[in-house]
Amino acid sequence: MDVLGFVLIGTITGIGGGTTRDLLLGRTVWWTQDPLELTLCVTASLVTFFFIKSDITRRKGMIWADTLGLSVFGVVGCYVALQFGAPFVIAVFMGMVTATGGGLIRDVITNTQPMIMSGQVYATAALLGSLSYASLRHIGVPEIPAEIVACLAAFSLRASAIIFNIRMGPPNEFIRIGNTDDDHRKH
Amino acid sequence: MDVLGFVLIGTITGIGGGTTRDLLLGRTVWWTQDPLELTLCVTASLVTFFFIKSDITRRKGMIWADTLGLSVFGVVGCYVALQFGAPFVIAVFMGMVTATGGGLIRDVITNTQPMIMSGQVYATAALLGSLSYASLRHIGVPEIPAEIVACLAAFSLRASAIIFNIRMGPPNEFIRIGNTDDDHRKH
Amino acid sequence: MDVLGFVLIGTITGIGGGTTRDLLLGRTVWWTQDPLELTLCVTASLVTFFFIKSDITRRKGMIWADTLGLSVFGVVGCYVALQFGAPFVIAVFMGMVTATGGGLIRDVITNTQPMIMSGQVYATAALLGSLSYASLRHIGVPEIPAEIVACLAAFSLRASAIIFNIRMGPPNEFIRIGNTDDDHRKH
Repeated sequence: MDVLGFVLIGTITGIGGGTTRDLLLGRTVWWTQDPLELTLCVTASLVTFFFIKSDITRRKGMIWADTLGLSVFGVVGCYVALQFGAPFVIAVFMGMVTATGGGLIRDVITNTQPMIMSGQVYATAALLGSLSYASLRHIGVPEIPAEIVACLAAFSLRASAIIFNIRMGPPNEFIRIGNTDDDHRKH
Repeated sequence: MDVLGFVLIGTITGIGGGTTRDLLLGRTVWWTQDPLELTLCVTASLVTFFFIKSDITRRKGMIWADTLGLSVFGVVGCYVALQFGAPFVIAVFMGMVTATGGGLIRDVITNTQPMIMSGQVYATAALLGSLSYASLRHIGVPEIPAEIVACLAAFSLRASAIIFNIRMGPPNEFIRIGNTDDDHRKH
Repeated sequence: MDVLGFVLIGTITGIGGGTTRDLLLGRTVWWTQDPLELTLCVTASLVTFFFIKSDITRRKGMIWADTLGLSVFGVVGCYVALQFGAPFVIAVFMGMVTATGGGLIRDVITNTQPMIMSGQVYATAALLGSLSYASLRHIGVPEIPAEIVACLAAFSLRASAIIFNIRMGPPNEFIRIGNTDDDHRKH
């Protein structure tokens, strides 16, 4: 992929989820008012393109940057939707959209199987973060602790799923952990 | 596919067409105001995931649910656009978008060949429903009869196409019926 | 592909980029107010479907129509965004979105590798046109000359890339010209 293609894909991944949320909520798409965020995404993509040469470093870095983004964006997206006056259920959904939307658009454009289709604990982690945040706020927990707890919950779930290779499957194989052939079933 | 992936795909299919219509028209995306519709889509997807185990039942059910949705959404989408003040041609187009948009997004995400590309009488049936409704209303037919006739027209065309395996093709093979090698040409 | 599928893909390619720009900017999607543009796209697609039978003519025509569209839409998109009050950087980005968005959506739907991913000088040409226009206007060049120069710049770059088979690649192979094995490196 050439430099501009790389930058475009990087930028779409970074702002795609929040853009989808804003369009759905009828909110002004935040980055169109101030070029800072767009410039940041472009710069980050350029740095990655020119300075991180090793494919393995790049892939590992991507996975953990993605995990961090997933956790933070799920909570931020839910926060933005609640601030905008969205109902509880909608706000939780919008948190998940913000967290997973950018990666979904990237996967569709690059013709990769989307993470939400892969059976990995991905959208589930975003949902956990978004739902935790909305619930904690709902029962009166102050802003900052609610954000931290929700981010940590999402991050821990996604990180565990990566490290212990946890997968979710069809109804008869609800959760599978590791690569063993004997499945650990739950539910 | 895991349960959340299945629910997300089901929900996107259900609300994707109407969401696209609302975004294009500059209308408030209807389901963001009231969590009922979102909850219904999630529930329907969950029921399908956990209770319909047979792949054949599931596929058959999908095809006919899809046909029903195509007919109803085409007319509803056109109705919403006309109510919103869209011109005749735009409203007819929006009916087709509402009917086919959700399935199109689903097919793009799941990396399936979209129905509108398959040569099946699919978007054509949606267009027939949408165009019939707008025309009937235009010549003064009351709301309810116009809706019923237009839905039936779309449903009959799509159902015939499924049952008799009617396909449309390139210019030199405008319509083909059945699996025979001698094509029935028209136009 | 059948006639309606062809018309839909043609129309989406024609209006997709500008639609994305308008949605992102929070502008009314221009073609929903006046059916003329939609009708034009449908007519052009119908004419192509029924009258241009030769695959080679069709493909060649497509490539040059696409090049013309890329140059003009990049400048027009940037103009529209600036008129709407978008900041410089955002307006340049919107020009590129307008020029490349329709083709990107078409490629995603038809499951083709998107041009922006192909390493061809495609988005780069759109960016050149958009950036030239915004810069020329910024330094006080009148409307018409700025438009003409920017369109020509974009068209020339894209046309050269097609004719001389110029490609851009990963960091270690920034630009490649022609099919030779010994790469001409730059930067």
